[in-house]
Amino acid sequence: MEVGPPAPVRPSDNHSHGQQLGYNLLRDLAPERPNDTAPEFLTPGNWVTSMVNAGAMSGSGNLMDFLDEPFPDVGTYEDFHTIDWLREKSRDTDRHRKITSKSKESIWEFIKSLLDAWSGWVVMLLIGLLAGTLAGVIDLAVDWMTDLKEGVCLSAFWYSHEQCCWTSNETTFEDRDKCPLWQKWSELLVNQSEGASAYILNYLMYILWALLFAFLAVSLVRVFAPYACGSGIPEIKTILSGFIIRGYLGKWTLLIKTVTLVLVVSSGLSLGKEGPLVHVACCCGNFFSSLFSKYSKNEGKRREVLSAAAAAGVSVAFGAPIGGVLFSLEEVSYYFPLKTLWRSFFAALVAAFTLRSINPFGNSRLVLFYVEYHTPWYMAELFPFILLGVFGGLWGTLFIRCNIAWCRRRKTTKLGKYPVLEVIAVTAITAIIAYPNPYTRRSTSELISELFNDCGALESSQLCDYINDPNMTRPVDDIPDRPAGVGVYTAMWQLALALIFKIVITIFTFGMKIPSGLFIPSMAVGAMAGRMVGIGVEQLAYHHHDWIIFRNWCRPGADCVTPGLYAMVGAAACLGGVTRMTVSLVVIMFELTGGLEYIVPLMAAAVTSKWVADAFGKEGIYEAHIHLNGYPFLDVKDEFTHRTLATDVMRPRRGEPPLSVLTQDSMTVEDVETLIKETDYNGFPVVVSRDSERLIGFAQRRELILAIKNARQRQEGIVSNSIMYFTEEPPELPANSPHPLKLRRVLNLSPFTVTDHTPMETVVDIFRKLGLRQCLVTRSGRLLGIITKKDVLRHMAQMANQDPESIMFN
Amino acid sequence: MEVGPPAPVRPSDNHSHGQQLGYNLLRDLAPERPNDTAPEFLTPGNWVTSMVNAGAMSGSGNLMDFLDEPFPDVGTYEDFHTIDWLREKSRDTDRHRKITSKSKESIWEFIKSLLDAWSGWVVMLLIGLLAGTLAGVIDLAVDWMTDLKEGVCLSAFWYSHEQCCWTSNETTFEDRDKCPLWQKWSELLVNQSEGASAYILNYLMYILWALLFAFLAVSLVRVFAPYACGSGIPEIKTILSGFIIRGYLGKWTLLIKTVTLVLVVSSGLSLGKEGPLVHVACCCGNFFSSLFSKYSKNEGKRREVLSAAAAAGVSVAFGAPIGGVLFSLEEVSYYFPLKTLWRSFFAALVAAFTLRSINPFGNSRLVLFYVEYHTPWYMAELFPFILLGVFGGLWGTLFIRCNIAWCRRRKTTKLGKYPVLEVIAVTAITAIIAYPNPYTRRSTSELISELFNDCGALESSQLCDYINDPNMTRPVDDIPDRPAGVGVYTAMWQLALALIFKIVITIFTFGMKIPSGLFIPSMAVGAMAGRMVGIGVEQLAYHHHDWIIFRNWCRPGADCVTPGLYAMVGAAACLGGVTRMTVSLVVIMFELTGGLEYIVPLMAAAVTSKWVADAFGKEGIYEAHIHLNGYPFLDVKDEFTHRTLATDVMRPRRGEPPLSVLTQDSMTVEDVETLIKETDYNGFPVVVSRDSERLIGFAQRRELILAIKNARQRQEGIVSNSIMYFTEEPPELPANSPHPLKLRRVLNLSPFTVTDHTPMETVVDIFRKLGLRQCLVTRSGRLLGIITKKDVLRHMAQMANQDPESIMFN
Repeated sequence: MEVGPPAPVRPSDNHSHGQQLGYNLLRDLAPERPNDTAPEFLTPGNWVTSMVNAGAMSGSGNLMDFLDEPFPDVGTYEDFHTIDWLREKSRDTDRHRKITSKSKESIWEFIKSLLDAWSGWVVMLLIGLLAGTLAGVIDLAVDWMTDLKEGVCLSAFWYSHEQCCWTSNETTFEDRDKCPLWQKWSELLVNQSEGASAYILNYLMYILWALLFAFLAVSLVRVFAPYACGSGIPEIKTILSGFIIRGYLGKWTLLIKTVTLVLVVSSGLSLGKEGPLVHVACCCGNFFSSLFSKYSKNEGKRREVLSAAAAAGVSVAFGAPIGGVLFSLEEVSYYFPLKTLWRSFFAALVAAFTLRSINPFGNSRLVLFYVEYHTPWYMAELFPFILLGVFGGLWGTLFIRCNIAWCRRRKTTKLGKYPVLEVIAVTAITAIIAYPNPYTRRSTSELISELFNDCGALESSQLCDYINDPNMTRPVDDIPDRPAGVGVYTAMWQLALALIFKIVITIFTFGMKIPSGLFIPSMAVGAMAGRMVGIGVEQLAYHHHDWIIFRNWCRPGADCVTPGLYAMVGAAACLGGVTRMTVSLVVIMFELTGGLEYIVPLMAAAVTSKWVADAFGKEGIYEAHIHLNGYPFLDVKDEFTHRTLATDVMRPRRGEPPLSVLTQDSMTVEDVETLIKETDYNGFPVVVSRDSERLIGFAQRRELILAIKNARQRQEGIVSNSIMYFTEEPPELPANSPHPLKLRRVLNLSPFTVTDHTPMETVVDIFRKLGLRQCLVTRSGRLLGIITKKDVLRHMAQMANQDPESIMFN
Repeated sequence: MEVGPPAPVRPSDNHSHGQQLGYNLLRDLAPERPNDTAPEFLTPGNWVTSMVNAGAMSGSGNLMDFLDEPFPDVGTYEDFHTIDWLREKSRDTDRHRKITSKSKESIWEFIKSLLDAWSGWVVMLLIGLLAGTLAGVIDLAVDWMTDLKEGVCLSAFWYSHEQCCWTSNETTFEDRDKCPLWQKWSELLVNQSEGASAYILNYLMYILWALLFAFLAVSLVRVFAPYACGSGIPEIKTILSGFIIRGYLGKWTLLIKTVTLVLVVSSGLSLGKEGPLVHVACCCGNFFSSLFSKYSKNEGKRREVLSAAAAAGVSVAFGAPIGGVLFSLEEVSYYFPLKTLWRSFFAALVAAFTLRSINPFGNSRLVLFYVEYHTPWYMAELFPFILLGVFGGLWGTLFIRCNIAWCRRRKTTKLGKYPVLEVIAVTAITAIIAYPNPYTRRSTSELISELFNDCGALESSQLCDYINDPNMTRPVDDIPDRPAGVGVYTAMWQLALALIFKIVITIFTFGMKIPSGLFIPSMAVGAMAGRMVGIGVEQLAYHHHDWIIFRNWCRPGADCVTPGLYAMVGAAACLGGVTRMTVSLVVIMFELTGGLEYIVPLMAAAVTSKWVADAFGKEGIYEAHIHLNGYPFLDVKDEFTHRTLATDVMRPRRGEPPLSVLTQDSMTVEDVETLIKETDYNGFPVVVSRDSERLIGFAQRRELILAIKNARQRQEGIVSNSIMYFTEEPPELPANSPHPLKLRRVLNLSPFTVTDHTPMETVVDIFRKLGLRQCLVTRSGRLLGIITKKDVLRHMAQMANQDPESIMFN
């Protein structure tokens, strides 16, 4: 075969109508979004303002500034654009080289270089401190406000129920829940603590407070920081993969998300604070990285800090620093070098210890649900554990499908226009149904904590209402299996009702315009199911210990089944089904129990749950929301197995207009300006000449515009028909032609190329691993076309039989 | 500027004299290496033989077989060559596609596809089981043989001291070390248990046994499996980064390494079994992966299994599954997708639980050194912890420098010619010096265990010989700080001597021709130093608790300082200094103690130790040994910060002969055969014509040879002056010319290219992330030269002022 006809020149599409759609969509999301570049609301001094303006937060309003800066040090990106990882990395290496060579000049420069090298650790320390503090404050505030729905402390209204009774002297351990200083609303308002009218009054107050909290939260989010809604993890994943969403991690978002998180959790809605805490920690990370030019001026380096911040967020959410690091590695991060691993670990530890020194749970424990079990598990129990895994997988599938369907409905129908009303309605329904049932009335984390607990001798919970053998005296911790009492049977009914309620309401809650995490609701669903299965197995084993399946390991009088362990396994299974976490899930759970002993049940359930859920659809909830929103996220976990080639994906396609290219030394300034005006591509390949089509480089649109504007203003003799050249030497021109314009500085001389025969799986791999924005396609040295990240994502969507137009941004 | 003159054609160097050197070096290492392709020594059946021959172990002897196979399904690599990760990945995708499309054809194919999908988990399960079992067997055997140096059990000679006394009925807890059934050699041989002559006899027997064990070990290694020597981690790192060393993970190596590991650890040499256990586990991984064609036929997939096996190895070495996974991720692995993370975790857990069910330590504990401390640490203690970190860093630097210098001496002088004598001599010296000192006589892990332990009430160790206050009665666990007794002072002297001895002897031991790990010796050095510092601080605090630094936290009668914790911190610091592990080190230590409480001291020491050691040289011991041996290892951690461009690195250099290229349709078979004969490059770029130099693809040497041989044998009309063409259509030829030979099938149509202006930091990044073997350099579509992995490594060595010729292999 001959090498092929001169490649037909066709158009690229790296910045087309999808872009417009994208902007509109996010504007819609953020109708009254405040100007994040106005930091005077938050910081007193001007120095932060100027640093922030120069770096992270610089919106499009700053475009004029750059023209005054020494050209061509531009290197920032527009909002809703993808960053070029290779370029960011090489810019950082340049910076590093400059500092290293300078450091040999004087002592002062040497100290500056040391400070620069240390700034990474300083940022981590600051993130850890702030994230830990915020988490502690949130915990304390939630505690108080949740109790506020029930009553108030007479000695000081800012005391929660427990603190109130703790400070009261008369309290003994047994009736710590009843102390005179703590007054229910009925006691306070009508001086009645029992009876129907007191119950109704308390019920009403509970609903009223819930509605107030929810209304406040949704209004704050709408007015001040629309980005504060949701769990934030899908967007953080997208940002970490190299996408710019300005303001998403801004200071306003941080402030409003922290405040509203307290409000919504206290309102009793079926949501958790764990996901949003990751968002909060990432906002802290973004804030501190904007203080150091090493991070504020480099989008790649900034993302390293954000990865570590995500680890710190999970670390404080669960008190699990190692789990947090693995969560960041497995779930959230995209580019995670080993250096970041080590720093993440540091940030996670600092955050955990800060939280512990605030001690919001009053038990000196790092972890949210501290459990200690006294009996081992037995092989035969693996069967119910795997059943719980299946349940978790099914719940995950059900939840993701229904939630996505509902969110799509919210996006496309009138429903989305009344977010405040929606929140109010859901809160009202939640409060009305939740109050009568003791398992839904209290906060979800308390519920999970109770379900995880083993029934010790001192346990007063209804779930531990077993019939004791009066003849037996035993050590406190090793209580044998006993027949269930009335309380347990009541609890089972209530748990079943609570389970159904939680399953339904969580689907409608997640995705509303308020901060909402789903770790805790998912765990609650699993823990309820698990506890019920656990009690079932326990009673079966007690009453039928002669059955062959029990005979070997469960003799009468032995403590064989721990229902709390079942609850924990169920929680892991459900969380795994929804998020598809694996290692990090098991490690977080391991850090909760602190014993390797129970890793095998947890792992069995997590694996089963993932397999069952994956059988119905590969996407976890975060990926599903990313797709729903059309973010340009190239998942590392998706395997691309189709047989297509680069030539099938590149633009221009057959029959499309030719690719817009620049020539190295024959176009005039006017030609280029026309081309820029008429197209909206992010950049243009530069070729030797239109005939040979041999590629010499790539020029970014943004930098071309700046360079021409700059030259027209400052350089003499540059007029519209000046020749623009990208070569080292000016081209030979007729004597009377105007002064030519040299633009070699904006030319990227090492554009990434692949041949047209390259399999798409390789191209996808290259885009993923090198973090490219675009890649040029050549055949035998001739330029044929261009593939952008968006083209790759669209192609992948098409191959997976999805709508390629769902990919919105560049 | 014009696009440049037609590129001068110069030679590539991707397979030159360094190769020869490399072969010689490894032959030297393995002079009597048995044929690893002869598995009849190990497996009874023939089916394994055939599978193994087809896959993993196929040595160069199999070259003839491939010609009979359907061409061009070659896809294997020669020994001591680098694999092409992208190609391996795309081959696996092809295989996967084939299976998926077949699975729709029939039920049987569907089941086969399911089995294929499950085979990864099956391999992990098998690796876990075998690695756990081997670790258990090694532990038991070491226990017995270490005791054999002191005496023998009369009831059954295969009982260790502890087992012997355990079975004896008369033993009470206090004198469990003295039971009539256990006889020292002096008692057995001359019926004397006390006195000088008995001591000398026992001393002699101790030395004799040690020499016997060491001699056996070194002989076995030399005769049967020379690859079984050393810790194996540098080689495994190299293999995982994509290098082929046939037989390094073979069944012989597995068998011999397991046996000799027992021997050398029992001989009392200053080495540990942890590193070699990783090698053993990787051998298991290689063995099981050779049973499944998915892994045996794909070098990339096989490395995923090996990464998981490494995790299982560390998991059983320390009883730390999570630490094992992180070790594999941080230290050993190169390509570690998330799927592998999950599977590694599974393998590590299975291995840990297998080991626990064997229960070699008799305490149902997973971990080697189980510790429980009862007191928290105080802020002021951070100072001695950081001091220990500095000590660890200095020790790491000292050890690496001296050990590398000694190993280089061994390589270059006569010393290397007498490995048996060297081992015998070092063993003799070790035994002679070690016996008199109780802290070096016993096995190193027992020593570490004792040093880590807190002094409880029942502790009989000399280290716990404190002067008790007779008036005080206290609970067992919370003993206040007391003045040191005579025993402690003696112990301090002995520990100091033992410390110096360990430091010196370990330098000479690591790197001998026996299996040797250095985790345990490093930890011992740190633990001894740490315990001494701990006791020092404790006594200082006891005697001077009015000093300002102690006043705030250490009142008289309080238990403030835990010397065992200092030992643990010291161990972590020294291990960190030598290996430069960070997260995995802290996590392994965390799994040993099981409490988040002590992570901060460990982390402080680990960070300090790494910083101090890094200040003297960036390389850890494994990287240093990789460099010493000249393996082609492209470290992910090294940052390349120089300003060079691809054009500075590519071959041919200025003034060198032209690059050997093939043209697409103008060379005859004879031309190509001559080119192949005269050069030894691994492959040749294919261009349109010598004039235009426009690149169309790349052909591998190996596949060209096979294709031509194949064509000459089977295809009619192929003679020496047949034209070879790589295009789709044959070129137009004169009427009487011979039949042309089409070779498009061996042409890689998507060779990786960069432009000559690409910064080397980007090129290095591409080589690392995509795992390339070579990359072609173009300018404006014209081929200029080639960069191989070796060129990159040489360039990096040159930039770091090292000898570029130290890189040996391709």
